[in-house]
Amino acid sequence: MDCSSVYPIDAVLFRCPSCDGLLDVHHDVNPLKAIPATEWKQRFEQRFRTGQHPYNSGVWGKKEWVLPGIKDENIVSLGEGATPLVPVPGLAGPLGLAELWIKQCGISHTGSFKDLGMTVLVSHVNDLIKAGKPIRAVACASTGDTSAALAAYGAWAGIPVIIFLPEGKISTAQLVQPLASGATVIQLNTDFDGCMEVVRDVTADPSAGIYLANSMNPLRIEGQKTVGIEVIQQLAWQVPDWIVIPGGNLGNVSALGAGFELLLEMGLISKAPRICVAQAAHANPLYQSFQTSYREYRPVKAQKTLASAIQIGAPVSYRRAVRALERFGGVVEQASEEELANAAARGDRAGLFNDPHTGVALACTEKLIAAGTIEKGQKVVVISTAHGLKFSEFKTGYHNRSLDGVRSDYANQPISCEPDVDAVKRILDGIHGSV
Amino acid sequence: MDCSSVYPIDAVLFRCPSCDGLLDVHHDVNPLKAIPATEWKQRFEQRFRTGQHPYNSGVWGKKEWVLPGIKDENIVSLGEGATPLVPVPGLAGPLGLAELWIKQCGISHTGSFKDLGMTVLVSHVNDLIKAGKPIRAVACASTGDTSAALAAYGAWAGIPVIIFLPEGKISTAQLVQPLASGATVIQLNTDFDGCMEVVRDVTADPSAGIYLANSMNPLRIEGQKTVGIEVIQQLAWQVPDWIVIPGGNLGNVSALGAGFELLLEMGLISKAPRICVAQAAHANPLYQSFQTSYREYRPVKAQKTLASAIQIGAPVSYRRAVRALERFGGVVEQASEEELANAAARGDRAGLFNDPHTGVALACTEKLIAAGTIEKGQKVVVISTAHGLKFSEFKTGYHNRSLDGVRSDYANQPISCEPDVDAVKRILDGIHGSV
Repeated sequence: MDCSSVYPIDAVLFRCPSCDGLLDVHHDVNPLKAIPATEWKQRFEQRFRTGQHPYNSGVWGKKEWVLPGIKDENIVSLGEGATPLVPVPGLAGPLGLAELWIKQCGISHTGSFKDLGMTVLVSHVNDLIKAGKPIRAVACASTGDTSAALAAYGAWAGIPVIIFLPEGKISTAQLVQPLASGATVIQLNTDFDGCMEVVRDVTADPSAGIYLANSMNPLRIEGQKTVGIEVIQQLAWQVPDWIVIPGGNLGNVSALGAGFELLLEMGLISKAPRICVAQAAHANPLYQSFQTSYREYRPVKAQKTLASAIQIGAPVSYRRAVRALERFGGVVEQASEEELANAAARGDRAGLFNDPHTGVALACTEKLIAAGTIEKGQKVVVISTAHGLKFSEFKTGYHNRSLDGVRSDYANQPISCEPDVDAVKRILDGIHGSV
Repeated sequence: MDCSSVYPIDAVLFRCPSCDGLLDVHHDVNPLKAIPATEWKQRFEQRFRTGQHPYNSGVWGKKEWVLPGIKDENIVSLGEGATPLVPVPGLAGPLGLAELWIKQCGISHTGSFKDLGMTVLVSHVNDLIKAGKPIRAVACASTGDTSAALAAYGAWAGIPVIIFLPEGKISTAQLVQPLASGATVIQLNTDFDGCMEVVRDVTADPSAGIYLANSMNPLRIEGQKTVGIEVIQQLAWQVPDWIVIPGGNLGNVSALGAGFELLLEMGLISKAPRICVAQAAHANPLYQSFQTSYREYRPVKAQKTLASAIQIGAPVSYRRAVRALERFGGVVEQASEEELANAAARGDRAGLFNDPHTGVALACTEKLIAAGTIEKGQKVVVISTAHGLKFSEFKTGYHNRSLDGVRSDYANQPISCEPDVDAVKRILDGIHGSV
């Protein structure tokens, strides 16, 4: 990204040996452009959700745009992508939007959008191993979704997985996905950054045969970029006005931009949606940089936030994300803990079951509408990055009113009653009136 | 089912007023048969892939077979169905099966297959309300998945929902889905059967305007029956040898049979798969009845089982299920607590993340292969009814070796280490060898 060095796709590299910058996957788009847009649309629609493994995957149905060179039999797919795009009239109406859709990326194998990138990374590693590259395991440092996705895809493919975690800072529930998948889980007596250092050192020497799966690996972006393409496909190739996406490490934002870029270049759409990145106010380096029109950028010390997956002060993909934002009329908004918790709860009342990151995105959508940036009557798609089932403690804490610094405007608690029909009827009549 | 009384679809009835038996939805298949099988296949495939709400739902893409009379604008859909059908070579190989597929019904809005039935029930109620029927709320007694699904679909549609639960027997995590959806949650000082009695009494008088959503309501079967149709569609209309499904209240088994019946009748397939119902040994009335070729049937007192959603001793849909089993060469198998827990864990090691009910189904599959009932070289589809993320305590208990009566053959625990690269490398070399 920083210099112009080029390396082959099967080189085992995670940063540029010349400038130490992150790497991007470069596609030769000329042969792709020879195929007309109508043909691409037909091909993508034809494959979507068919029985033809792995082309029924939301990611591999777009294989030519993702990783064209890989052998089909080496693809490791667990049916990722092709997630529901759900209209939410109960939110759109009060906000004055024409349409509000939620892209449910958390309705997936391991419960988060990380599956989209991990299928590509693990498939690529599988392809390398089958071609005789000496790889004995894949490793990452992660406190949650990334380790769950890597461990599951590795288990399916029979590729050993190593997860590094900071000791004592992870709940058993967060641990259990990689443990269940049979990964080697190493708890280090340090913090997350310390874990990242160890995983970089352990994977730095290619001859050690341990492959790095963290998000500086550009292959994950290639899978994640299908989410934007899939949203447009599900809207019958009509383009919404805005896509709102929660941002922490910012790989997903870059991926979103990369997907729109390809859609434009191949002529499947003639204009792209604008992008809004939604950050937690407790971890908002991109928001702060946006206030200076990206002239200034300082990593921050991220404070604890309910939106734990985006509690990141020094995002790996900052420069990639700014590129996408500048290209697609981007804005950045932030949400406080109380704003994100109440926005998530308002969404739940409209039929969703939001994780806190979706709460951040919904809160920022509301704030941008109030500010007039998102206009009444527009069409908005919110990217939900994880399933609410991954965040039971957040949900119960909200409804118990036990979340720090949060006034739970929509807290709901059970009502106790004797098992007597008349007593029950009196309660119900009090709440629901009579017919 | 028991007498031959017939009532219109918009009658608010949950049992036959004449014989007190359960009701079935009866379809007039003659107009459906006028459409050739190839046309049905095309229609189903076409809709499955589109963005056209609600026809992109796995259930409503088959609207003519489910609830043909409902107005599209009254359908309450959250993108249910169209769940991944995942091949699991890591299990099929060691078992000697040609193919083993997992139908991931838990990868859905509320995390279980209950969404399939609830979209139909809530849509129907919405249609009745829009037609002016005096309905002020929908109610059910449930300890888990059913209440989560009813509450979410009701919230999306703006229809009030009432949930009855036995006080003190439900964890906060189980409570939080309906609470988040804003349902009225009433905790009764009784057990589950006591809750069922109250909900029947409260909904018995149609003039009270509270609609019953429990599984004696036949509309839910109409949605659930799409799961078998969808599996066959995803296999490109090829029929597997066996479908294995966990069974408690047995509505899902009846639904599976109803789906195959329609596929045969409309000529989309020429033979049906055989059905295996998998029960927990701690709640096995159908298994016991099967031992007598269904000549005898006695409800049992269900013992506590890890597979909590099928901990049912007196299944509501026993007779419907036997009808399906007799029609489709059915067998019934059972799994002990240890068998289900270890089978779930073996599946996890092959890339899944199984809830305990899927563990029951996988354990029974293994036992039927060992007995020669399921033959080597056959193709088997296992229906997974819920997402493993709903069962964190089961998973952590298994890996902590703290589940009663279970020897955890595949328990996996984290390894603690100082953040020192050499120390880490020594551990990794010990586990993963060298390149």
